[in-house]
Amino acid sequence: MKILRINMKNLTVSEDKTMAYKGLGGRGLTSKIVHDEVPPSCHPLGSFNKLIFANGYLTGSGASSSDRYSIGAKSPLTGGIKESNAGGESGLFMGKLGIRALVFEDVRDDFKIVYISKDGVTFDDATPILGKELSEAVDILRNTYGKHIAVFLIGITGEKKMNIAAIAGQDKEKEPTRFNGRGGLGAVAGSKGIKAIVLDAEGVERNKPKDKEQFKTALKTYHKWLMETPGTAKIFPELGTAGLVKTTNALGALPTRNFSTGSFELADNISGEKLRETILERGGEGTPTHACMPGCIIRCSNVYANKAGKRVTSPVEYENIGLLGSNLGIGDLDDIAEINRLINEYGADTIETGATLGVLMSQNILSFGDAESVLNAVKEIKEGSPLGRIIGGGAELAGKLYGAYRVPTVKGQSFPAYDPRGVKSLGVTFATSPMGADHTAGQTIRAQVDHHSPEGQVKTSKLAQQVNTLFDALGMCYFSAGAVQGRFELLADLITAYTGEKMTDTKLKNIASETLRIEHDFNRKAGFTKAHDRLPEYLYYEMNEASKTVFDVPQEEVESIGVESNDR
Amino acid sequence: MKILRINMKNLTVSEDKTMAYKGLGGRGLTSKIVHDEVPPSCHPLGSFNKLIFANGYLTGSGASSSDRYSIGAKSPLTGGIKESNAGGESGLFMGKLGIRALVFEDVRDDFKIVYISKDGVTFDDATPILGKELSEAVDILRNTYGKHIAVFLIGITGEKKMNIAAIAGQDKEKEPTRFNGRGGLGAVAGSKGIKAIVLDAEGVERNKPKDKEQFKTALKTYHKWLMETPGTAKIFPELGTAGLVKTTNALGALPTRNFSTGSFELADNISGEKLRETILERGGEGTPTHACMPGCIIRCSNVYANKAGKRVTSPVEYENIGLLGSNLGIGDLDDIAEINRLINEYGADTIETGATLGVLMSQNILSFGDAESVLNAVKEIKEGSPLGRIIGGGAELAGKLYGAYRVPTVKGQSFPAYDPRGVKSLGVTFATSPMGADHTAGQTIRAQVDHHSPEGQVKTSKLAQQVNTLFDALGMCYFSAGAVQGRFELLADLITAYTGEKMTDTKLKNIASETLRIEHDFNRKAGFTKAHDRLPEYLYYEMNEASKTVFDVPQEEVESIGVESNDR
Repeated sequence: MKILRINMKNLTVSEDKTMAYKGLGGRGLTSKIVHDEVPPSCHPLGSFNKLIFANGYLTGSGASSSDRYSIGAKSPLTGGIKESNAGGESGLFMGKLGIRALVFEDVRDDFKIVYISKDGVTFDDATPILGKELSEAVDILRNTYGKHIAVFLIGITGEKKMNIAAIAGQDKEKEPTRFNGRGGLGAVAGSKGIKAIVLDAEGVERNKPKDKEQFKTALKTYHKWLMETPGTAKIFPELGTAGLVKTTNALGALPTRNFSTGSFELADNISGEKLRETILERGGEGTPTHACMPGCIIRCSNVYANKAGKRVTSPVEYENIGLLGSNLGIGDLDDIAEINRLINEYGADTIETGATLGVLMSQNILSFGDAESVLNAVKEIKEGSPLGRIIGGGAELAGKLYGAYRVPTVKGQSFPAYDPRGVKSLGVTFATSPMGADHTAGQTIRAQVDHHSPEGQVKTSKLAQQVNTLFDALGMCYFSAGAVQGRFELLADLITAYTGEKMTDTKLKNIASETLRIEHDFNRKAGFTKAHDRLPEYLYYEMNEASKTVFDVPQEEVESIGVESNDR
Repeated sequence: MKILRINMKNLTVSEDKTMAYKGLGGRGLTSKIVHDEVPPSCHPLGSFNKLIFANGYLTGSGASSSDRYSIGAKSPLTGGIKESNAGGESGLFMGKLGIRALVFEDVRDDFKIVYISKDGVTFDDATPILGKELSEAVDILRNTYGKHIAVFLIGITGEKKMNIAAIAGQDKEKEPTRFNGRGGLGAVAGSKGIKAIVLDAEGVERNKPKDKEQFKTALKTYHKWLMETPGTAKIFPELGTAGLVKTTNALGALPTRNFSTGSFELADNISGEKLRETILERGGEGTPTHACMPGCIIRCSNVYANKAGKRVTSPVEYENIGLLGSNLGIGDLDDIAEINRLINEYGADTIETGATLGVLMSQNILSFGDAESVLNAVKEIKEGSPLGRIIGGGAELAGKLYGAYRVPTVKGQSFPAYDPRGVKSLGVTFATSPMGADHTAGQTIRAQVDHHSPEGQVKTSKLAQQVNTLFDALGMCYFSAGAVQGRFELLADLITAYTGEKMTDTKLKNIASETLRIEHDFNRKAGFTKAHDRLPEYLYYEMNEASKTVFDVPQEEVESIGVESNDR
């Protein structure tokens, strides 16, 4: 598995033959390269930033949930280090081509399609797909390059270098619906003139496990564990992540009307149960369970169809429902799906966009509950009108432009769909993760802890941050963590058998710790201090009426996270 | 001289009877209160921030250039400590009422007029002046409260809590033309519901020197020195600050087209000489020399009149010409004066607004040189349209919204009218001042140094930062520094004689050092590190074609500033 360096200014390609990054994958690899090669104080959209795509150890192995890939860079949204990962099959296609990582360097003004096949890398003019919605752009790419490709691409938001810009990959049905959403990585791609990466795996040989028998045995156990665990065997396949709506609504943690409170009077209309019921009732192209990557047992994704049974978008997830539904006072799944679809088509982060719309609603620029005006506002993103640019800048900037006091962000990045007063350990994750507010950086909603108490939350978050980092570094979906938690030896065995290089439980944990350490270290050099490890002020003083709590985890305890991992 | 605390939520007033702030004035006092009382991580527009007005030791004494006042708070623009000072006579009126400082606390949603007279403080509804341009609002205030008042007030930008919002005071002709421009202090006033402060000095007794004879003697010397110094005796009265246009244009430091280069082909049309000539030619209400505060010998201000001799605005200064003229590609004084007037009427910072317009021009949202479209864009500030909000947010946010690479800001605050590649010691000031980019925090343009060399710039800036802080803490105009530099004993003598409390040269210098130290300390606690003590990346790599230089003062040397004043 090789690392390719692609200079976008000169359009030159070289293989990294050093051993500097040997034994690393996913977030472990992207963060290491960012840490070692990107000057922490550089402009995120300038020539010193790098954009790295890296898949994991087991990509293409057939192990469930193991084809995720990480994208890393210095983030234009947070100003700190960023890793964002996604599923689908584009990361897998990198693997098919024998590529562990792509490292994009320097910047350019025009846009290219980077075409990668077994014969090497070429650069094509991207003009035919500029300004298009993602699904149309992908159709054009498929017509041009054939059916056996996988793509990464940015949308209009990335072309415009907006902070909400994501990078899209494709799911196993070849739809561009899997997003490395957070941190404005699409803007970094835009600054480098990368409109799309086309991975053509035609004629490449299938990767095989180094130790076939050992791998088969370990794989069987792993899949068995997944099937034995209620979350991965039943809840995720049935309700997807949307199953959380009822949970968080009951906890008072479902973001409602710009994170002003934590339960929504129309929650039943947008719950996972209602979503499943609606999809099943309508039939047609909709499906309540769907695997984003080949061979995934968990199948948390879905395809949402309209009343006529025609596909609207995929997937409608918990975060979308929270940010584009309750957070905007919108209680209708069709409205949410349509807003979701449009944001996807523009290649934007639904979380950041939803939070921004919530802030604008709190300032009476839009009205809570008015889906029509939300759709019109979102369309302005494509126009690049001043309002579109404001939405494209993300919640933190919108809050500053309007002099808002209640802005749900940490380190410039908006909260995913959890009010930290109702799930305090997630508040700790938001406050302390090197990524800014991010549930996938340390997800604790399913932790056995009193979510309203200030006690035990730092410990809970810390453990979750370690585990999430581990799965990100593996290139695996953390939804499988429930099945393997506490018995990571199995994953080590899988990796050893598949790659032929000895992996151990301890080594995996060390990779996670070291990854977090260098991420904090990069941020410290980029200018972050403990002063940035805190939530917005209002959460400490204004009660969430649903949870009847403020955020009261002692700040001193919160700040203890990350301290041992660098010398701040 | 007393310190009044005014709680804007409860509308209560109390006198600070502690001795905590004894012996301090101006910036020395505002920064001390912000440092000691404002939590560094608080939201700048929330209830924990405080807004402090403080005049200096010699206010009302009749000493030239000594009625300046400082306003301090945590800045919504920079997120750090902020002090911004201005001349005119509003600070003097505070002194007439026996007030050294006003400390505004907490926040409110509606707007009040804070009326202060010898009988105390009352709060009136501000509705009659909301949304008005400054000059109309002041007319209404004068009709309501009589002719013998001085005012502070915010404009529409402050009401809207925009980052470009300034606080205005009046000049000696009672026009609201003196601005505490930088750092968005008008937004802090807006968050506290302070639309205007009316200072009614009717019936108050004149302050007298404690030692009349000693004061008279010292004052005579001080004024003699001012008259003997070419800058203060001749250049400033003749050309005002605009005399700098030719200097900086020749140095390649006159910001031109969004700080892309440092000399402007139309510089002769907007020079101080041309300004003087134009004003003299037109006659009428214009005047090329004007004292903003009573008794000022330097008289650097002016009144600009149109072709019919009618007053347009006052003053047209170097910074306005640089930011609203050459930086926007505009080479016509009438255009500059009209843009300047409008920004003033909205109570905004001309520097921040001009820099923001420059960034928008670099992104082709407006066109360089097109004064008409600039005027239309500026009018959107009043409307509060999305474009108006973007302009109101300042250059840093506009740059982020448009994915711009060349954004002339440090710590979120835009450069005044000097390209740091052409005046490198000012670049050092911009990079290291606790205030963000600010020429008045350490003005070096007149320093005897090779402005294009990387050598000696840190030393030059450091000295200037000390001297500027000293004058800010005195409540004196730093334009008198040229006359007293190196012989500060005279100022100490003036203060001792006037206040009856022993002041010494050493004590003054200590106040300046200590003020800088606590400002850096506040910023450190607010999350600033050495990583923030640098200029925008492009200035290190892209040559200013006019000066033929990049900014190349060694970063290690730059970062040495502020190190001894705190334990960063």
